[in-house]
Amino acid sequence: MPAIKCVGILTSGGDAPGMNAAIRAVTRAAIYQGIKVKGIYRGYKGMITDEIEEFKTQNVSNIIQRGGTILKTARCAEFKTPEGRKQAHDKLMEHGIDALVVIGGDGSLTGARIFAEEYNMPIVGLPGTIDNDLYGTDVTIGYDTALNTIMECVDKIRDTATSHERLFFIEVMGRDAGFLALNGAIASGAEAAIIPEISLEKDQLAEMIETGFRKSKNSSIVLVAESDVTGGAMGVAERVKNEYPQFDVRVSILGHLQRGGSPSAQDRILATRMGVAAVDALLDGQRNVMIGIQNDEIVNVPFSKAIKNDKPINRDLLDALRISSI
Amino acid sequence: MPAIKCVGILTSGGDAPGMNAAIRAVTRAAIYQGIKVKGIYRGYKGMITDEIEEFKTQNVSNIIQRGGTILKTARCAEFKTPEGRKQAHDKLMEHGIDALVVIGGDGSLTGARIFAEEYNMPIVGLPGTIDNDLYGTDVTIGYDTALNTIMECVDKIRDTATSHERLFFIEVMGRDAGFLALNGAIASGAEAAIIPEISLEKDQLAEMIETGFRKSKNSSIVLVAESDVTGGAMGVAERVKNEYPQFDVRVSILGHLQRGGSPSAQDRILATRMGVAAVDALLDGQRNVMIGIQNDEIVNVPFSKAIKNDKPINRDLLDALRISSI
Amino acid sequence: MPAIKCVGILTSGGDAPGMNAAIRAVTRAAIYQGIKVKGIYRGYKGMITDEIEEFKTQNVSNIIQRGGTILKTARCAEFKTPEGRKQAHDKLMEHGIDALVVIGGDGSLTGARIFAEEYNMPIVGLPGTIDNDLYGTDVTIGYDTALNTIMECVDKIRDTATSHERLFFIEVMGRDAGFLALNGAIASGAEAAIIPEISLEKDQLAEMIETGFRKSKNSSIVLVAESDVTGGAMGVAERVKNEYPQFDVRVSILGHLQRGGSPSAQDRILATRMGVAAVDALLDGQRNVMIGIQNDEIVNVPFSKAIKNDKPINRDLLDALRISSI
Amino acid sequence: MPAIKCVGILTSGGDAPGMNAAIRAVTRAAIYQGIKVKGIYRGYKGMITDEIEEFKTQNVSNIIQRGGTILKTARCAEFKTPEGRKQAHDKLMEHGIDALVVIGGDGSLTGARIFAEEYNMPIVGLPGTIDNDLYGTDVTIGYDTALNTIMECVDKIRDTATSHERLFFIEVMGRDAGFLALNGAIASGAEAAIIPEISLEKDQLAEMIETGFRKSKNSSIVLVAESDVTGGAMGVAERVKNEYPQFDVRVSILGHLQRGGSPSAQDRILATRMGVAAVDALLDGQRNVMIGIQNDEIVNVPFSKAIKNDKPINRDLLDALRISSI
Repeated sequence: MPAIKCVGILTSGGDAPGMNAAIRAVTRAAIYQGIKVKGIYRGYKGMITDEIEEFKTQNVSNIIQRGGTILKTARCAEFKTPEGRKQAHDKLMEHGIDALVVIGGDGSLTGARIFAEEYNMPIVGLPGTIDNDLYGTDVTIGYDTALNTIMECVDKIRDTATSHERLFFIEVMGRDAGFLALNGAIASGAEAAIIPEISLEKDQLAEMIETGFRKSKNSSIVLVAESDVTGGAMGVAERVKNEYPQFDVRVSILGHLQRGGSPSAQDRILATRMGVAAVDALLDGQRNVMIGIQNDEIVNVPFSKAIKNDKPINRDLLDALRISSI
Repeated sequence: MPAIKCVGILTSGGDAPGMNAAIRAVTRAAIYQGIKVKGIYRGYKGMITDEIEEFKTQNVSNIIQRGGTILKTARCAEFKTPEGRKQAHDKLMEHGIDALVVIGGDGSLTGARIFAEEYNMPIVGLPGTIDNDLYGTDVTIGYDTALNTIMECVDKIRDTATSHERLFFIEVMGRDAGFLALNGAIASGAEAAIIPEISLEKDQLAEMIETGFRKSKNSSIVLVAESDVTGGAMGVAERVKNEYPQFDVRVSILGHLQRGGSPSAQDRILATRMGVAAVDALLDGQRNVMIGIQNDEIVNVPFSKAIKNDKPINRDLLDALRISSI
Repeated sequence: MPAIKCVGILTSGGDAPGMNAAIRAVTRAAIYQGIKVKGIYRGYKGMITDEIEEFKTQNVSNIIQRGGTILKTARCAEFKTPEGRKQAHDKLMEHGIDALVVIGGDGSLTGARIFAEEYNMPIVGLPGTIDNDLYGTDVTIGYDTALNTIMECVDKIRDTATSHERLFFIEVMGRDAGFLALNGAIASGAEAAIIPEISLEKDQLAEMIETGFRKSKNSSIVLVAESDVTGGAMGVAERVKNEYPQFDVRVSILGHLQRGGSPSAQDRILATRMGVAAVDALLDGQRNVMIGIQNDEIVNVPFSKAIKNDKPINRDLLDALRISSI
Repeated sequence: MPAIKCVGILTSGGDAPGMNAAIRAVTRAAIYQGIKVKGIYRGYKGMITDEIEEFKTQNVSNIIQRGGTILKTARCAEFKTPEGRKQAHDKLMEHGIDALVVIGGDGSLTGARIFAEEYNMPIVGLPGTIDNDLYGTDVTIGYDTALNTIMECVDKIRDTATSHERLFFIEVMGRDAGFLALNGAIASGAEAAIIPEISLEKDQLAEMIETGFRKSKNSSIVLVAESDVTGGAMGVAERVKNEYPQFDVRVSILGHLQRGGSPSAQDRILATRMGVAAVDALLDGQRNVMIGIQNDEIVNVPFSKAIKNDKPINRDLLDALRISSI
């Protein structure tokens, strides 16, 4: 295998806090190892539209603390076609890019996997998503920040939720995974969480209300993971209005602000470690792997595993929430 | 007029950050002046239900930084009836309360005014509302904090609003006043604000789009004041979908979190100054006045003026927003 | 007077949050008015070293929320000499710059005044300093953010100041003005402030201790303005150790972090309004003036007044602090 | 072994964010299990001075988000004597307390261990310290919050650190452990960290300067762990002034504010899980153990291990910092 001379880096899919810290680390680690770096704008789209420029260490100065991604991100329909990928590959060849680091979620890594196989290109992925729904890594880049953002929002809502008999349903992101809702509920002292992983097993709303979840409380806050399975906050509130009309229900949908903000310490450190590890992996001849972290150690997870498997919720957390909110 | 021996304090209506700082200042200023203080819980309701307790300086220790109100707040239908007010007055007499400080917005001060006239009770009001819609004071307690909260939320949304051709409508509070939306838009670098004060004069949405408000921008953010007049963010977005289908529209409703959070420095200082001034006013024989601030000086504003008049928007701000967002 | 075709903009002296918002507003207001804009880096130094580049609206995109100044700032000894100013003027001529907007504090505006007189150049100043020590404007750009930063730091220190008999002296900036210390003390619920404006009148420390400032308190926090007159936190602590050895004293010097951070809503709005007004003033033929704000209205203050006069402390605040901290 | 009927809970030593979340979880978990709970104020001191009161679920309402500890904390010399411990034990017996949960650091757990042995009392410890220096747990309660606080302070200092040739030394806490300094440096994008674990191996300052750590940078920030071994920020700055006089050095000591602030999501979740686990452990007959977390699983660590062993720094982090800051 020939040595890698130039690595392209891109962010794809929904953006996540810490992506800039990852871009910075990949760029500097590559330069440190004598490899040229090229930034590709707007995800896979920028490969096709040729929005590519060389990055020096200064290009990534003073970005570690910034939300979003300086490389932007976009969905790209063309890249889902063989013709689009051909065009993308041609551009990479023109730029002398012989390896890629892709930062993104499930969909982005799926794209990377197909591309890597079609063109025999070394690609390493970094798990960048606030949803924490990638298998093979304890946490993803952006998750801790989003969790803190949610918690701060719920803290504020609780400040004002003082009147009697109010029941707040707050919808948080998660793309069919309950990590943000469940941990957000524990962190904010909410009374309950309704998450897709449990929705199929039992009626969380009914149980919550039947066990008298708010006997001694003036107001209650329930976090609901956005998902067809849970029905979202609107769906749950609708049910309460019909089935438990005694409650004065309020709904709040946190929405897009959950993706933004300056990354937390944990996300910046994670992104930095993973960025350095991505370059190490490429130099080591690894390919088609996602960098993960397990028990505070960096691991390489084959794309096939990271994408295909569902990451389970730690069931201990359900008890911790139930008991601490009595 | 006999000297005041015991002052009751309550918070009423929608809560606002800084109410605790005001409670602290009123309590300590009264004690400093040799007057007893009684905290009344849940607004006017607590008078009727007799949720009243004496406050010492320690009762208000370590609350200046907390959002919400330790005295809680509630709507109270009974207090709108003469019978309810009679009951309330009886309880106050039982407790030896011979003057009141009421912290709240428009509706709360209207209640105070009626009660003061019926029972010839000295009452001083403090303007506590995030909406800033009280005449006779440059700012109200809670407004600055809510403005900062909105700004921080929009900052986060902007982090992620990087894709092409997206148009975000973010709904903020204001109760038919555009202060939060207009100043929030300037502070967050949003492209425009749709506010009720201007809705009647012209079609803000049409103008915004016709003047090519986003020629050189990838994404645009517009703040919309909640109001029947503006239609809210949902209403505006609906119109865009029908009339300007070329835009990819997103809606975010910030909701209840705008009322919460630790108060800003300005709100804490304002609340402290106003709380001290409220006690001074009572000692000075003032009654039926709201404490206001004008040009950094404390003023006494008759309830009649504060409630009846509409507070105008500073039109210079419209220019500042339009010009700074090109 | 010939029309202005190209305005140079620079930030000088100690940086302040909101400077970027001002740069953004000046740039866009000038372009809006058909005037070219050139950014000058590192204050007056950049004029001499020719670090000057044209600014388009995009150059100031997405900077309103950032602390510091994208134009950097530096002290410049050469500019204090006639030769240095000659060089600076020559460079401005080369670049076709026929007017300047200078954002900075006392020293920076003094430099602007001299330069304006020597070369008959239209210059408008914006008051950019966290110290709030410029006469003719109710507040300066950066002051509100610094005040909030100080308050948040003191909030944190108070969280941990729970043990008996501890007396914390926290030193804050101010450059011989007590605005940050006094208002910071009110906002954070501190027990007292030691500020230069009062130091000459009486012994603040002795009074504080003699009036039993902490009878019912477990721990006490006193803000001290950095200044030769106050002695700073270290100086005051030293005195306590000698004269009142019964107290367990702790010192914290907040230092440089007071200058940083994302600007508050008030600072961003103020900077935006002032930036727009600076361009208006230039177009209106104004020169040698600082833009100020008084009673929420923009005013033009001659440099001579802004620089020479001392801005007084509002004495009402001293009472508010004393009474609210009993 | 007889069943536990009443558990006492206390916080001891330096306070840490998240202690309140732990108090809340222990209280509610005990009540959930049918055990009575008594809060003991001011650490071990409150046992002796009899500052003990029963806690119901409401006593711990709305505290999860608050910094510091509602139970206060204090050093207690008497508890280090057999007589003091005898008095303490007598009081516990009077109150019917037959088990303890102690939240604190190294010193507090050492006290717990001695007391447990002398009086054969079931005691479970929770690791509450920002320093993260307890063996047997991946993280301690308070560490993540302190790390974020440090990062936010350094972010602010960096905003203003724009002039050429400045070298900032920022001292952070750690009590002879480098976790906060090293991870704080990575998270804030600082150029280097000087930590006690490495000080004995090599001259970190000399290496840093010799490897030209700041070739392409305008200003540099170095985090220094407080410690006799490192010399602290003052000690290092003094050395630079003597040995490398070409640098313009600035020092900032973050100080007590590092202990305060609303806890981060991670700390609240950790404290909640550990609090629930502490009651489980007591019910399970465990004693003289500290609750730890390893690989996201709760573990019981004998006091002897947790106290005696040094927790090592992950050496990978040194590389991550060095490479990402080129």
